[in-house]
Amino acid sequence: MASEFERIARLQTLFGPPPRTVSLGIGDDAAILDLSAVEASHLVWTIDACVQGVHFAPSLLSWEDVGWRSLMAAASDLAAMAASPLGALCAIAAPATLADDDLYAIARGQAAAAAAISTAIVGGNLSRASEVSLSTTLIGACVKPATRAGARVGDLVVLDGDVGLAAAGLRLLRGGEAAGNAVQAWRRPVARIAQGLRLGAIACAMTDVSDGLAQDAGHIAKASGVRIELDADAIVGAELRAIAAEDSLALALGGGEDYALVAAVDRAIEGMRVIGRCVQGEGVWCGGERVDGAGFDHFKT
Amino acid sequence: MASEFERIARLQTLFGPPPRTVSLGIGDDAAILDLSAVEASHLVWTIDACVQGVHFAPSLLSWEDVGWRSLMAAASDLAAMAASPLGALCAIAAPATLADDDLYAIARGQAAAAAAISTAIVGGNLSRASEVSLSTTLIGACVKPATRAGARVGDLVVLDGDVGLAAAGLRLLRGGEAAGNAVQAWRRPVARIAQGLRLGAIACAMTDVSDGLAQDAGHIAKASGVRIELDADAIVGAELRAIAAEDSLALALGGGEDYALVAAVDRAIEGMRVIGRCVQGEGVWCGGERVDGAGFDHFKT
Repeated sequence: MASEFERIARLQTLFGPPPRTVSLGIGDDAAILDLSAVEASHLVWTIDACVQGVHFAPSLLSWEDVGWRSLMAAASDLAAMAASPLGALCAIAAPATLADDDLYAIARGQAAAAAAISTAIVGGNLSRASEVSLSTTLIGACVKPATRAGARVGDLVVLDGDVGLAAAGLRLLRGGEAAGNAVQAWRRPVARIAQGLRLGAIACAMTDVSDGLAQDAGHIAKASGVRIELDADAIVGAELRAIAAEDSLALALGGGEDYALVAAVDRAIEGMRVIGRCVQGEGVWCGGERVDGAGFDHFKT
Repeated sequence: MASEFERIARLQTLFGPPPRTVSLGIGDDAAILDLSAVEASHLVWTIDACVQGVHFAPSLLSWEDVGWRSLMAAASDLAAMAASPLGALCAIAAPATLADDDLYAIARGQAAAAAAISTAIVGGNLSRASEVSLSTTLIGACVKPATRAGARVGDLVVLDGDVGLAAAGLRLLRGGEAAGNAVQAWRRPVARIAQGLRLGAIACAMTDVSDGLAQDAGHIAKASGVRIELDADAIVGAELRAIAAEDSLALALGGGEDYALVAAVDRAIEGMRVIGRCVQGEGVWCGGERVDGAGFDHFKT
């Protein structure tokens, strides 16, 4: 097995050179961001964790997939704020028994995901642990941050991307299927950076769907002080309906990890998928029932 | 046990309001940094992990200590770059069996450490895991970053803070002692932010001592293309000599986690503790022997 420093040297090669705004990447005490090269009034900053046995089972994914998903899950928070990434740091914790090739496969997945959203991994940390655990932090540049607060009574609720498809894909994968759009949606989600910038420019409030539409729309409802009424027909996409006829609505409301964006806008623009509206009250409702509070809770007993 | 959202609400209270430069803290998809309030040409950015069973054993520390140490270990990387912190994000992973009070004790330790270096925790992530694992990322503002490269032949090597004292303290703690400066050095290290700003203003190269002086000075030697010769008498402090007479030099060279700063300067200023010099060659030498390469390696078998 390679030493910690040999591993860092190899990761440095896999992660490639830093982007223009990062004047110093991997190999010192910290990465350096050159503010004179950053054209933005605000930076947004997030951290997300991806833990073996909690967020993924290695039996359902390649190590490349694990690396890819961990990066995209974190990057989706930037999309949700209408920011474009300036770089990522990745803290990789792994058992001493994880083979060098598996570690490098994780890193290849992270690097490919970063490249897919036009950024790069510019630093990180390597540590032992009893399970694989990836903590990813990203900084994004932002002109007009889109928060969860700001939706008003009368606003329309719009969806960018699919909901429920990744959850359906995970079910297919567990049943032994390994191909198709739904499986790909779960295995290789893509943070909707460009869409977040476009939608954020006109959104009154926005968030990404990581824990399920009902719960995540609930964050907008709570932060904005409105009730969100969702249209059941509008949130179930044609593809989801085709592969999960029996419970497509439940998957669309409760399935997370598609990393779609949900936003409140005061008027819909052509091509927008309107899925509901903001009214007086609280919570998220669909078909006359309150549906928020049913998402994934890390500490529910 | 509290739900994930109840826990986040409680953490938000414990972590307090964000600093002036952070226009949005805990509770949205990401924290927002207002660049118009940042007076610096550069930002430095780091991530560090603190894993149960690897970095700490709960039997030797309180959960407050664990939180404190995790924050300070990460913040020390900012001190090493001559930066002052703008904020921290903490990803806390913990077993479902960790009691609410223990989680909040970790958070109190993190918050106290952040306050001690005039910053605050402005966001994070909560996740389940099979062991407690804390990943901390900090951003710092910086006018003149101090990297590991830049030391030249003829420079003096100076030390700010103690080395070996924390390692001696850990040994005392394992032997049943629970008081004294050495124990405190290991339990409650302090990132040397103010010292890093002062020293960084005149340093040609700088780093912090987290893995041991020999190994960390080795990073400067390697990045700068010089050999560092250390003076054995100068690196062993009086306190370390008194409590570890037999192996004080080994502890001073190899003991990590004091978070002292080591720098190369072209001239010493009054009050500086000169511990060696930069000469032609490579590696770190002390008493005629090469001593780098003996520090802690996470993946050494």
